[in-house]
Amino acid sequence: MQVFLAKHAGFCFGVKRAVKIATRSSKLHREVNTLGDIIHNPQVVDDLKLKGIIPVNSLEQCGKNPVIIRSHGVSSQVYKELQELGVEVIDATCPFVLKAQKQVKKADDRGYQVFIYGDADHPEVLSLCSFAEKRPAIVFSHPSELTDRVQPKSAVISQTTKDLAGFKEAICKLVEECSELLVFNTICTATEIRQRHTVNLAKEVDLILIIGGKNSSNTKMLAKLSSPYAETYHIETAEELQKDWFTGKEKIGISAGASTPDNIIVATYNKIIDWFGDLPKAANVADIPVH
Amino acid sequence: MQVFLAKHAGFCFGVKRAVKIATRSSKLHREVNTLGDIIHNPQVVDDLKLKGIIPVNSLEQCGKNPVIIRSHGVSSQVYKELQELGVEVIDATCPFVLKAQKQVKKADDRGYQVFIYGDADHPEVLSLCSFAEKRPAIVFSHPSELTDRVQPKSAVISQTTKDLAGFKEAICKLVEECSELLVFNTICTATEIRQRHTVNLAKEVDLILIIGGKNSSNTKMLAKLSSPYAETYHIETAEELQKDWFTGKEKIGISAGASTPDNIIVATYNKIIDWFGDLPKAANVADIPVH
Repeated sequence: MQVFLAKHAGFCFGVKRAVKIATRSSKLHREVNTLGDIIHNPQVVDDLKLKGIIPVNSLEQCGKNPVIIRSHGVSSQVYKELQELGVEVIDATCPFVLKAQKQVKKADDRGYQVFIYGDADHPEVLSLCSFAEKRPAIVFSHPSELTDRVQPKSAVISQTTKDLAGFKEAICKLVEECSELLVFNTICTATEIRQRHTVNLAKEVDLILIIGGKNSSNTKMLAKLSSPYAETYHIETAEELQKDWFTGKEKIGISAGASTPDNIIVATYNKIIDWFGDLPKAANVADIPVH
Repeated sequence: MQVFLAKHAGFCFGVKRAVKIATRSSKLHREVNTLGDIIHNPQVVDDLKLKGIIPVNSLEQCGKNPVIIRSHGVSSQVYKELQELGVEVIDATCPFVLKAQKQVKKADDRGYQVFIYGDADHPEVLSLCSFAEKRPAIVFSHPSELTDRVQPKSAVISQTTKDLAGFKEAICKLVEECSELLVFNTICTATEIRQRHTVNLAKEVDLILIIGGKNSSNTKMLAKLSSPYAETYHIETAEELQKDWFTGKEKIGISAGASTPDNIIVATYNKIIDWFGDLPKAANVADIPVH
């Protein structure tokens, strides 16, 4: 049996940065709060809890602790409330999300009806929506939802972790109805690269494991994109692996979402090697063959 | 043999308006000049010459005659020169082209690199280009020409008579390279409707005649779009019809570009009826069966 890792998998720039900011702040404070999970990976969130980085659901639960804004960003309203509370704010919003927030504001200020391609309940999308203050942004998770709500002057933006193909389909649909369409391509390069390499890998293997939080939008998208090409399992940790999945399989692929830490990727690879492989186990991600 | 006219064919709003403006001005002046042909139909241009509407190639040839700006528009430079000359200006630019000119100027002023989907030597495109004064607009006649010249902040606009499918393809290509893309859908509804009905008709007939100036961009596009579905002939007048084209053909379609006058459509229909048909000849376009 051969096991390959997708060429680009795991932590992206924004997630790496957010975890680094959180870890650093834990050395300076006894307890720090994050509004919601700092990234969409339960194992990383649990690790950070041990260091005093505690997720809370509302500002009321924070007390006077410093507050870390998570990678997905928060609403403009939360920024205002944090300022009023006078607590220390540590902003770990992904810089690409920060840029998208500014673009939503710019489009809204200039009189465009803003459309957001994303999942309506995703924290990044909720954050983006809040920056359209003049007229409510319209969220759609699939181009087919764009029906009769298109305005002649519209703008469209994407959740950073959505797929480019769906975004293009939406643009083509919008342009039929709009005389003026402002498009911000906010799909993160890391997302696009992970998607492309995952699909390439899926085409070459019999089975592919997509590792990442079950609540991670970009991980779910990787699993969705690979499933037409190979038997696909979305797992959070190596513990979920089942031996019978591998019966009759020769080539195994591994990919991981942008919020999946290296140690879980390594543990998954090592468990398969332990069961079926003839190569040495990996000490770190760099030891895993890529495809 | 059955002969059908496309549901929407012939003079569009802008062309009708330009011819009306020219005809009206001929009643007020002994001679009026147009800078280039007022519309892309040699027969109409010849008719207007008889009324004292004389096309010229440069401002020097105008003397002190009033000058009609033709339906395709002129460059911003020509507007300035006309003002300096102090001659009477009669603006017959299609209102949709006027709007496109303003949009090019707006995009250029706001720092976008302007791309124009169109034919580089078409007067409308030359006119549009002139309104990008800060940085030269880039013209492309096919999406494949969009190579390495794309800027992160770009705008794209179309010659009013190009096809929506090609425009969408270009947008999808541009959005891969642009973080911000401003799209003006300047494709004229009349153009799009003529294209759609011509293709629908071509699918139903054995042979289709596309009537219009050989120099008419929108007519050439109709012929291009219909040719995969039916044997297609682009003619300017009924005189070009050849009897042997119709051998073995049962259903004949007729469509016409936006600058083709009704009398040429009627003459073409009547010639076919004369040769092969069993219906009465048409007195005007409304007598021709549509499909």
